[in-house]
Amino acid sequence: MIAVLKEGVSQKQMDNLIDWFKRQGLDVHISKGQFKTIIGLIGDTSQIDIELLESLDIVDSVKRISDPFKNANRKFHPEDTIIKVRDTQIGGGTLTIMAGPCSVESPEQIIAVAKAVKASGATMLRGGAFKPRTSPYAFQGMGAEGIELLKLAREETGLPIVSEIMDASQLPLFADVDVIQVGARNMQNFNLLKILGAQPKPVLIKRGLSSTYEELLMSAEYVMASGNEQVILCERGIRTFETYTRNTLDMSAIPVLKHLTHLPVIIDPSHATGKYALVAPLALGAVATGCDGLLIEVHNDPAHALSDGPQSLNPEAFDKLNRKLLALHAFLREEGESK
Amino acid sequence: MIAVLKEGVSQKQMDNLIDWFKRQGLDVHISKGQFKTIIGLIGDTSQIDIELLESLDIVDSVKRISDPFKNANRKFHPEDTIIKVRDTQIGGGTLTIMAGPCSVESPEQIIAVAKAVKASGATMLRGGAFKPRTSPYAFQGMGAEGIELLKLAREETGLPIVSEIMDASQLPLFADVDVIQVGARNMQNFNLLKILGAQPKPVLIKRGLSSTYEELLMSAEYVMASGNEQVILCERGIRTFETYTRNTLDMSAIPVLKHLTHLPVIIDPSHATGKYALVAPLALGAVATGCDGLLIEVHNDPAHALSDGPQSLNPEAFDKLNRKLLALHAFLREEGESK
Amino acid sequence: MIAVLKEGVSQKQMDNLIDWFKRQGLDVHISKGQFKTIIGLIGDTSQIDIELLESLDIVDSVKRISDPFKNANRKFHPEDTIIKVRDTQIGGGTLTIMAGPCSVESPEQIIAVAKAVKASGATMLRGGAFKPRTSPYAFQGMGAEGIELLKLAREETGLPIVSEIMDASQLPLFADVDVIQVGARNMQNFNLLKILGAQPKPVLIKRGLSSTYEELLMSAEYVMASGNEQVILCERGIRTFETYTRNTLDMSAIPVLKHLTHLPVIIDPSHATGKYALVAPLALGAVATGCDGLLIEVHNDPAHALSDGPQSLNPEAFDKLNRKLLALHAFLREEGESK
Amino acid sequence: MIAVLKEGVSQKQMDNLIDWFKRQGLDVHISKGQFKTIIGLIGDTSQIDIELLESLDIVDSVKRISDPFKNANRKFHPEDTIIKVRDTQIGGGTLTIMAGPCSVESPEQIIAVAKAVKASGATMLRGGAFKPRTSPYAFQGMGAEGIELLKLAREETGLPIVSEIMDASQLPLFADVDVIQVGARNMQNFNLLKILGAQPKPVLIKRGLSSTYEELLMSAEYVMASGNEQVILCERGIRTFETYTRNTLDMSAIPVLKHLTHLPVIIDPSHATGKYALVAPLALGAVATGCDGLLIEVHNDPAHALSDGPQSLNPEAFDKLNRKLLALHAFLREEGESK
Repeated sequence: MIAVLKEGVSQKQMDNLIDWFKRQGLDVHISKGQFKTIIGLIGDTSQIDIELLESLDIVDSVKRISDPFKNANRKFHPEDTIIKVRDTQIGGGTLTIMAGPCSVESPEQIIAVAKAVKASGATMLRGGAFKPRTSPYAFQGMGAEGIELLKLAREETGLPIVSEIMDASQLPLFADVDVIQVGARNMQNFNLLKILGAQPKPVLIKRGLSSTYEELLMSAEYVMASGNEQVILCERGIRTFETYTRNTLDMSAIPVLKHLTHLPVIIDPSHATGKYALVAPLALGAVATGCDGLLIEVHNDPAHALSDGPQSLNPEAFDKLNRKLLALHAFLREEGESK
Repeated sequence: MIAVLKEGVSQKQMDNLIDWFKRQGLDVHISKGQFKTIIGLIGDTSQIDIELLESLDIVDSVKRISDPFKNANRKFHPEDTIIKVRDTQIGGGTLTIMAGPCSVESPEQIIAVAKAVKASGATMLRGGAFKPRTSPYAFQGMGAEGIELLKLAREETGLPIVSEIMDASQLPLFADVDVIQVGARNMQNFNLLKILGAQPKPVLIKRGLSSTYEELLMSAEYVMASGNEQVILCERGIRTFETYTRNTLDMSAIPVLKHLTHLPVIIDPSHATGKYALVAPLALGAVATGCDGLLIEVHNDPAHALSDGPQSLNPEAFDKLNRKLLALHAFLREEGESK
Repeated sequence: MIAVLKEGVSQKQMDNLIDWFKRQGLDVHISKGQFKTIIGLIGDTSQIDIELLESLDIVDSVKRISDPFKNANRKFHPEDTIIKVRDTQIGGGTLTIMAGPCSVESPEQIIAVAKAVKASGATMLRGGAFKPRTSPYAFQGMGAEGIELLKLAREETGLPIVSEIMDASQLPLFADVDVIQVGARNMQNFNLLKILGAQPKPVLIKRGLSSTYEELLMSAEYVMASGNEQVILCERGIRTFETYTRNTLDMSAIPVLKHLTHLPVIIDPSHATGKYALVAPLALGAVATGCDGLLIEVHNDPAHALSDGPQSLNPEAFDKLNRKLLALHAFLREEGESK
Repeated sequence: MIAVLKEGVSQKQMDNLIDWFKRQGLDVHISKGQFKTIIGLIGDTSQIDIELLESLDIVDSVKRISDPFKNANRKFHPEDTIIKVRDTQIGGGTLTIMAGPCSVESPEQIIAVAKAVKASGATMLRGGAFKPRTSPYAFQGMGAEGIELLKLAREETGLPIVSEIMDASQLPLFADVDVIQVGARNMQNFNLLKILGAQPKPVLIKRGLSSTYEELLMSAEYVMASGNEQVILCERGIRTFETYTRNTLDMSAIPVLKHLTHLPVIIDPSHATGKYALVAPLALGAVATGCDGLLIEVHNDPAHALSDGPQSLNPEAFDKLNRKLLALHAFLREEGESK
């Protein structure tokens, strides 16, 4: 860590600061320039409160040199993490396709969708039982019953299930869910992350709408520091000034995160864009960019009733898309191997 | 609510959609233009899932005409809400000054700061016992002990206390805290909001880093719909591209929120900017813009040790600032009354 | 266009507004709801100043129903625009690779790079002669001499050239440049756009750092309305809160723009990310998402001197990448045809 | 400037880089840490292309220690710049009120508004003759005739005039305009800035919608480096995710810019918010935060015809607001002096 001091700092102020660093067990290297003094800190700086430091009168700015995340850091764990989920795996060259409806609505619905997406080659079933809704007056999901229906669909198809937890108190209901999802709004619900770190199921963390890559990795670090190394990262769109799409899918997250961490990275084009017509091109783009998997919304009944156009992601459209995704993934692997 | 349909929608598709609206108990007005058809929906549209609607193949876009919040809406409650907290109140022309350290650190620290800010005219004491920290390795606050120390400082000074809750499981510890704060990262932790709606203490909700005004009001609506009408809104900076300040203080939030809602609106210039030198000018600006109060960080010991410049908000600087704030507030009230 | 009026508007105010609309030659349809009145405007609303309308006291909000762009609109021109540039073309299923150095620096440099990228399969040569630099003290490009060197490189290799114009006064120098580029900072330099609309060379417009899709299309419309239909759109990253990458590449721009317009869409992963290691994965992703071409920075000398790692986009790395891009593009075309 | 090198850089690569720095005339200090090497650069680093440096394979990140702006820097010019414009001045404790219509529309309109705002205490007249419009089909201003009408209004009232230039070719028309405005979309039109630096009239630069404070100061630097020291900075809202207001007024710009530079800083609440009801509270807030002036839109005829509510900024509303602004400014000055 480097702290750049303001001009005109007195020797006494500087000595006070250096003493304070030394009391934190850090080595201090001082380099005086023409105008400004730079203090280099060597040792375990993870305890240093960078915001406190920056807020001091005598400090101009602070720059971290080493990453604040350890367990999630590829430097200390160069091999890709592979997460086994029943008969399938996430990471390590596999393309994981998690498909299913936004909300679980009935046994017929979830079983029909599960069978359809399995037939098209999906490897996991997603479905919401607890739904984070902006309005207290909107449908909040089927709750515990929704989880039971997901398990039923798993029994029928063999597909592992992934569903979102909204609160630590719901944990007992997720004991038999294969992958527990933390939504974008809960990405920095640190108590929930700690509790998920102390249980054995893999955790899929969605990036917050205005969270940096580093903040996402620090949220993974919360889970890992509590003992659970099985974390999956998911980019699902960030909030920008553009309103045509619901959010802006940040495709750079794939190569950046895969460079910084050994954890698998998946993409959710459905929530990122909010428009079904954009899901297929962006899903293909995400596979070519190098993601480990996709989270794709597939719905049957309500859409069927209200619209039957060719672009909505009903089972037929998903089938067509998924065949393309698998062919593209196979092509890219062959290309890579022939080099 | 208005739904604009895409061009080329078939009569059958349109009939399906209209049937579906009618089954939700809505009246439907149809207006066919040269290219597009517009459907006006009349009735209680708060149950309609606007995102589902927008995602339908045949729908071009959706526009809400009436506000989705009710309890928080000034239209249905024109008078300002005034929240009584012990001997003081928030809203209704009062300028509430909540001052205190970022974290409670020791009995000496919190009592010293409490006495100092009281002497300068602060009306409430703020202090963090549970700290949301990006890193799992950083100090997470004194916890339950911190709450006890805040109560001790209240006993010594009579100042009501405000502190942040991070999780529903901590609620018993907050039974005797005067105002319970929900942090920016928890603004859409809907389960926490519901639980705070079912207890009697006033709730101060900080706007999320990338939350719209409407989303902030919907979070207030969660608390109010659960039975607790005592909600205070706090603007604390939003995330933008500018990195010189920690966040960008959105001063327009004051007149916009006070137009949309009857709830009190306070400003936190300390967290918004992350720079002590900016707190004084922005606090003055916030008072002139019309806020109901301020949340200001005042610290003693660590800053004293490390720096003693004139701009840091130690008790002396706070004293100088608070006298200006009170004088400005008095001037603006007189001006208003003389009109 | 729809204008939603505020509650409590008087009949006289409404009549004034309706008269004003009728004087603009518009048909007016009025629909009164329980609380609010909605005015539908039918006819050519492109003359209406939407910001003036929204700023009126009696207007709550305005919603445009039809697109404000005409010449660029796919609705009125369903076929893809194909732009012929010497022996090559942009759009219509071709993958255009514009490669070359950021700045033209010397005859040796530009000719060496031109020969290298041609050998690797690039179809156009890019190079900056006039450089928009944030600092007045930084190197501003070779100017007219740089343009001459690009022409020399074209003579040597046959590659058409693309270069950025910064000001209308430079137009004579661009008379023999094959494609004239408008930089992101000039995207809304409307006088420059009009002047480029009145000359015959194709114009490549880069999206501004905080410009919406619609604003980009309106800038294309400026060129087209002045008589030049040969416009190429380029996404090069937008400004967000994320600072790890220089900007955030908005991959959704590809399917969105190709849906809204018939103009070709290309991607600049080099400027978007500012990191060479991210260029290859995002270039592959952009091709799979469906772009018409890429703008890729390839440099030789300075990079060679300072670093020779495998990821920097020197000619060798570009060669490897471009072979992958062409193979991927061929694969995707075959896949498409076999369907 | 500090360059942090990546881990695992070879001695040869480092030597190459250090040689290159030395050839630029810089002194180099090397500090090797446990994992990373830090290179400190001492001397005139303004020539260094920071983006090129950051893009090198062996460089992890770069941090500038000293400000890249010189002429605009308060460090080298501690006294506030005061700009004399006819009988009035901008900066140095004065509150400058630039008021007038968005567009000049007729002699009657501009003279009527000029007389009204002068009577209310405005110190300058603003009015647009050339209007930057997103759509090529919208009214683009009266052009040269508009400038003549502004001069006529100046003759009638004595108010100095400020108007926006859109292109260097328009400069002759602005020879007798008192302050030349550069719009937000042209903030980085570097050729225009250079040309305005070579003429004698004061230049008012509006911050771009997604421009940082530093970029705004670098644009001022372009004008100043070309010989014109009379630059006024204007914050007019930045683009964020919030859509309720047209843009987000960044009030922190006032204390930040006044700390970094000696140039006057003014605020445009009309364009920032796009809502007349928000202009008054934010104008008051801006004065209390410490701005040197305000740019306020005042319109008469069209608004009068279409709406006559109490909040629109017609001359009556402006009169009421301006009296409050002047009283507040006087109060704050007295307060300051009594300290």
